[in-house]
Amino acid sequence: MQAVKIGLMGLGTVGGGTATVLIRNCEEIARRVGRKLEVVHAAARDIADQTILDGSKVKLSEDAASVVNDPDVDIVVELIGGYSPAKELVLQAIENGKHVVTANKALIAMHGTEIFKAAEAKGVIVAYEAAVAGGIPIIKAIREGLAGNKIEWLAGIINGTGNFILTEMRDKGRDFDDVLKEAQALGYAEADPTFDVEGIDAAHKLTILASLSFGIPLQFDKTFTEGISKITREDVNFAEELGYRIKHLGIARKTDKGIEMRVHPTLIPEKRLIANVDGVMNAVLVKADAVGSTLYYGAGAGAEPTASAVVADLVDVARAMDSDVNDRVAMLGFQPASLQDTAVVSADDFETSYYVRMLADDRPGVLADVTRIFADNDISIEAVIQKEPDEGQTRACLIMMTSLIVEKNMSKALSKIEALDSIEGDVVKIRLEHLS
Amino acid sequence: MQAVKIGLMGLGTVGGGTATVLIRNCEEIARRVGRKLEVVHAAARDIADQTILDGSKVKLSEDAASVVNDPDVDIVVELIGGYSPAKELVLQAIENGKHVVTANKALIAMHGTEIFKAAEAKGVIVAYEAAVAGGIPIIKAIREGLAGNKIEWLAGIINGTGNFILTEMRDKGRDFDDVLKEAQALGYAEADPTFDVEGIDAAHKLTILASLSFGIPLQFDKTFTEGISKITREDVNFAEELGYRIKHLGIARKTDKGIEMRVHPTLIPEKRLIANVDGVMNAVLVKADAVGSTLYYGAGAGAEPTASAVVADLVDVARAMDSDVNDRVAMLGFQPASLQDTAVVSADDFETSYYVRMLADDRPGVLADVTRIFADNDISIEAVIQKEPDEGQTRACLIMMTSLIVEKNMSKALSKIEALDSIEGDVVKIRLEHLS
Repeated sequence: MQAVKIGLMGLGTVGGGTATVLIRNCEEIARRVGRKLEVVHAAARDIADQTILDGSKVKLSEDAASVVNDPDVDIVVELIGGYSPAKELVLQAIENGKHVVTANKALIAMHGTEIFKAAEAKGVIVAYEAAVAGGIPIIKAIREGLAGNKIEWLAGIINGTGNFILTEMRDKGRDFDDVLKEAQALGYAEADPTFDVEGIDAAHKLTILASLSFGIPLQFDKTFTEGISKITREDVNFAEELGYRIKHLGIARKTDKGIEMRVHPTLIPEKRLIANVDGVMNAVLVKADAVGSTLYYGAGAGAEPTASAVVADLVDVARAMDSDVNDRVAMLGFQPASLQDTAVVSADDFETSYYVRMLADDRPGVLADVTRIFADNDISIEAVIQKEPDEGQTRACLIMMTSLIVEKNMSKALSKIEALDSIEGDVVKIRLEHLS
Repeated sequence: MQAVKIGLMGLGTVGGGTATVLIRNCEEIARRVGRKLEVVHAAARDIADQTILDGSKVKLSEDAASVVNDPDVDIVVELIGGYSPAKELVLQAIENGKHVVTANKALIAMHGTEIFKAAEAKGVIVAYEAAVAGGIPIIKAIREGLAGNKIEWLAGIINGTGNFILTEMRDKGRDFDDVLKEAQALGYAEADPTFDVEGIDAAHKLTILASLSFGIPLQFDKTFTEGISKITREDVNFAEELGYRIKHLGIARKTDKGIEMRVHPTLIPEKRLIANVDGVMNAVLVKADAVGSTLYYGAGAGAEPTASAVVADLVDVARAMDSDVNDRVAMLGFQPASLQDTAVVSADDFETSYYVRMLADDRPGVLADVTRIFADNDISIEAVIQKEPDEGQTRACLIMMTSLIVEKNMSKALSKIEALDSIEGDVVKIRLEHLS
């Protein structure tokens, strides 16, 4: 069979990794697919900077549009990242009748609906396994491996930088700011770490996972996002003491009220496998009605792990490109006509357990006042720990864990508790999930 | 699009689960696939025993051959198990031009070569995701998700019964025989538990995983198999003390000498995620050149978890049945013409680390004798622990861990050590893998 001709846009970390893997594993891939995957054209901002394709017959351009417009190219791989010009280039590739593989989560989460619609109109495929959890084949697992299931919920560690920071805080008792600086020095976190530590990157990925799991349109704007920058060493330690770990999770859940999509720091029982996913590694735990819980673990970023997902997509597209469009895996997992506009639950109506910590006067009656307010708001307390005041202090640290509650009740209760004279400052609250 | 018509052979645990899932999730599946998967014919040994399909329009037979020969059936699902008549029925289905989905690991491991050849000749698909690790989409992950990689090794907990027994021995300090009896009472282990505890079931699955990973023919007869029935509570405890867990692993590894395929009890560092996979759960850890380590975890058996994999296969087959055979995923992951008859390494040439335990006279010079014998056989000792003799005893318990060694050297050394007057009885040896 004829080789499949690939055009690469971007030869940075992931683009370079993709070229490397395609060249190094060329024979192995052809043994699997029955045909070769051949890079015929590649674009980089400065082609003098790249050395990977030196000596090859690959055409090199500094203008990405020339890849998109190259009549020789069957599949365009977009590894530029960001919204623009990635979006315009992808749409032009589709317009030119080319299939697209991309690792761009921001692009899919924000503009996926428009891009998939254009691709459907042209009968081409847009594949994006590398956009979520790097090398873990999680999109394939949900879209195909669990196709017989109703998915109930999923919870994922889908940002390696955030997980690295939380792991270091726990293992070495370090502070957030200190670890963040190291993560930046190591190249894990960008100079502007907002996307990672404030959960925006994770929210992009969660938006995609929620659509794949529940057959709903992509709705990044409705994904609730809370970062980890306010997590303190103190809370990490208390959590540990109580048998929990704090992880920055993306959670999507189908409830009677609709779909919850949320990214936030979360206490999870240390016995759960996902609680032991440390460092820059990613993992996604999926609960589905037939199979129960399955977990997928691996590297969520990096040149070759991400390339692994890009190449898997190229193999899939190579197989499906000549097939009837009705026989292809739907781009969003569900047939476009079968997407349902299920309500997205607002944060007020989330149902979750809570860990709360407050500084309280160390005298009789304070605990009774606090627990009374919780009870008045339908909040059951599962555990209370009181830490004696430090030497010379008069305020004790009060830690409570609640059972499953509706979030607006928590907000009401906390504003009343914070108004008590016996409570100092804000109450720290972190959501808690049992993941069982 | 027209419904895909399914014939089910077997309505036992997995067959009943499959019918249940197909009926319950009928709409959800059709939303994904764009067409319905419809059971039109089912066979069970005693149809009066089944109630799942009561009231449905499904044709029921007591003769499985009538499903295979039903002109209405597009895909035959074989959930009878065992070699015969499963093999004859599957071959007849293929001969009749029908696609086949099976959960039968013994059948694929032993007769897969013949079955795939017949299917290729007829242009039909044989899918078997449910044959390995139940509901975990591990075959899809290796065959498609990691298609861009050279796989280096994999290690899997692929028998739930064995893992349940080892977990109980560790958690509750129980003996092997005691837990086995409970597993039988709980229905995890068969009345004849040989397939589970002696590793034969795991070896069937490992045989399949090795072929998928390395593009070699199925060679069950060359898979080394050692069971867990000789593992004692004592060794489980010593392992724990040293920071290791004992798991019954299936390991496939590509080495300079060829492919190692082995199933045996293994010490693994407790920090590894797979060391924390407990009870009846399964997990497979795969090390590949581009993606690094990925892990897949879930239920390895049970009605609906296995059904989840069967239905995923049905969805894949429904999509691929009308496609060009060259565009299908190769049944063994690699194109039939690309399978390589790579040498399979014999047990003598395995390279692994070892945990050994012996009873030795508690007097000077014994340790020197033992370590001298190891050194003479090119075996480096990484750690030694000596346990003082129990009250009134004269023999101490000596535990050693070796670095990576060639297995025949270990056998030579141990026969010399066992011949020493200062050593009592046989030396216990358990392989140790770092899995990094």
